[in-house]
Amino acid sequence: MKLATLREGGRDGTLVVVSRDLARCVPVPQAAPTLQAALDDWGEVCAELASVYRLLNEGEYPSAIPFEPSRAASPLPRAYQWADGSAYVNHVELVRRARGADLPASFWTDPLMYQGGSDGFLAPRAPMLAASEDWGIDFEAEVAVITDDVPMGTPPEHAGAHIRLVVLVNDVSLRNLIPAELAKGFGFFQSKPASALSPVAVTPAGLGTAWDGRRLHGPLTTYLNGALFGRPDAGVDMIFDFPTLIAHAAKTRSLGAGTIIGSGTVSNRDPATGSSCIAERRALEAIDTGTATTPYLRFGDRVTIEMLDAEGCSIFGAIDQEVRGYEGPTP
Amino acid sequence: MKLATLREGGRDGTLVVVSRDLARCVPVPQAAPTLQAALDDWGEVCAELASVYRLLNEGEYPSAIPFEPSRAASPLPRAYQWADGSAYVNHVELVRRARGADLPASFWTDPLMYQGGSDGFLAPRAPMLAASEDWGIDFEAEVAVITDDVPMGTPPEHAGAHIRLVVLVNDVSLRNLIPAELAKGFGFFQSKPASALSPVAVTPAGLGTAWDGRRLHGPLTTYLNGALFGRPDAGVDMIFDFPTLIAHAAKTRSLGAGTIIGSGTVSNRDPATGSSCIAERRALEAIDTGTATTPYLRFGDRVTIEMLDAEGCSIFGAIDQEVRGYEGPTP
Repeated sequence: MKLATLREGGRDGTLVVVSRDLARCVPVPQAAPTLQAALDDWGEVCAELASVYRLLNEGEYPSAIPFEPSRAASPLPRAYQWADGSAYVNHVELVRRARGADLPASFWTDPLMYQGGSDGFLAPRAPMLAASEDWGIDFEAEVAVITDDVPMGTPPEHAGAHIRLVVLVNDVSLRNLIPAELAKGFGFFQSKPASALSPVAVTPAGLGTAWDGRRLHGPLTTYLNGALFGRPDAGVDMIFDFPTLIAHAAKTRSLGAGTIIGSGTVSNRDPATGSSCIAERRALEAIDTGTATTPYLRFGDRVTIEMLDAEGCSIFGAIDQEVRGYEGPTP
Repeated sequence: MKLATLREGGRDGTLVVVSRDLARCVPVPQAAPTLQAALDDWGEVCAELASVYRLLNEGEYPSAIPFEPSRAASPLPRAYQWADGSAYVNHVELVRRARGADLPASFWTDPLMYQGGSDGFLAPRAPMLAASEDWGIDFEAEVAVITDDVPMGTPPEHAGAHIRLVVLVNDVSLRNLIPAELAKGFGFFQSKPASALSPVAVTPAGLGTAWDGRRLHGPLTTYLNGALFGRPDAGVDMIFDFPTLIAHAAKTRSLGAGTIIGSGTVSNRDPATGSSCIAERRALEAIDTGTATTPYLRFGDRVTIEMLDAEGCSIFGAIDQEVRGYEGPTP
């Protein structure tokens, strides 16, 4: 099934079941007022949500309303955990090679993962705000899964059963703040502002053959100001699959329901597929010509991230965000 | 006023107002069912909570029940954000000096901060679970503040007004996993499992003269297996005060209501005050004698963290946790 959150009814919005074609939706307060509430009691509410989804797709829901992505929040407008891996090691290798750093052999066997801020996800059509273009504003097109409760020490072979939903992510990065933050040794903190999720979250069953239980398959398309920037296949060159990433996150602690685990920037070895972030394109330019020429985002730039199915229909809806200057807090 | 959360009524527990002496408490469902709900609408509910607190302290609350810390969850059993600073630079300097590393000068002017996991805080009397003693289990006694909504770019001079509550923290660390995690460059991830908060959260006004608007004053006592381990004063040698830490966290993004900002391990330059974690004591031993002798925690060890007021009464209640071996997830 497909689920979304409308930007009304409070900080956590209003959960809606969305039709397969993303055309219509229906609130389900009798089942769960919010997506977090549904995830907290998934076993209790999923049958009812699935029943609504079936009727909605059969056209038998007179109370259904049009689904307008502009009214959508991120499916989880705020979450208790966002942990982002770096599963497409090709991306890591390219970025390191461009700055003359080797890739440690362990990077192919031990996932990279960082703890991200989860207290506020941008709506999929909300602007990316930054106080200065000098921060080096970049997008990262990713896939993520949302889990139920994962016990500490869950092995990869049992971790896949905890995946409840799949979403797309624009993991916003401030490239020019990253070196100083990482040099301090405590992670990305100031260089990773709020990210955005796709308008719609889809259950593994709702993805059909695009989901193989471990990875999402299909080209993840990114457009920058209307021009195709990249369309790598999310199912190709993903060295650490989602069950492996979940088990990595749960090694020393349990994960609460509603935990979002990201894939990191989607990247294929075939350079013809393009890139899912500007930093990777700049790395390729630097490797090829010695000079990175593509600038980071400027105020007014627009980034669109989407995945289409075999028939060209949007699976998750589009993340579509403009970069805007931030003037500072209201006094 | 003083607030706590009982471990009943769901994942977020039940908010109670606690008497100043921590003896009695009363649920306040008419005001807010949970602490997160109160923080989401603080301006709407704080007057009613304060009124209950006043009556409770005057003894005029027949429906009050005994406050039993063993029934308490962490005030926020799960939170949308936990960001921990390292404000007592003396601690950082000692740990680095013990391994022969200089302290960069910028560490005195630019706060260290990492994004921690917030999806599950341990109850203040819950065990610290670890699969192996070889992980190098350690406690860290800290102070933290809980904020309301902080706009992006809020300067330090306005950040203090966003502090709603103050708590103590046991920031559990897995010392022997830290070097490999930090070497990967993405932060502490696996080396920082779930932490615990003190049974009671206190508003700045409820702290009286112990709170000066920027720092909490008073000795933070840690006992290991009943023996005093440290009692540094939280108001001494705190290089970055809480408004500065909040402004640092909010530089590139807003902070959602219920954000918890930690001080890092409390540490005084006077070594007679002892330490707030084993790693610092080991650093002092290594500096003094060339050899660190105090072992990290073993299964069965007990850590107690508390702050007493001038009359010897507990301000926040005690964090009191035993270390236990974890057998793995139930199949």
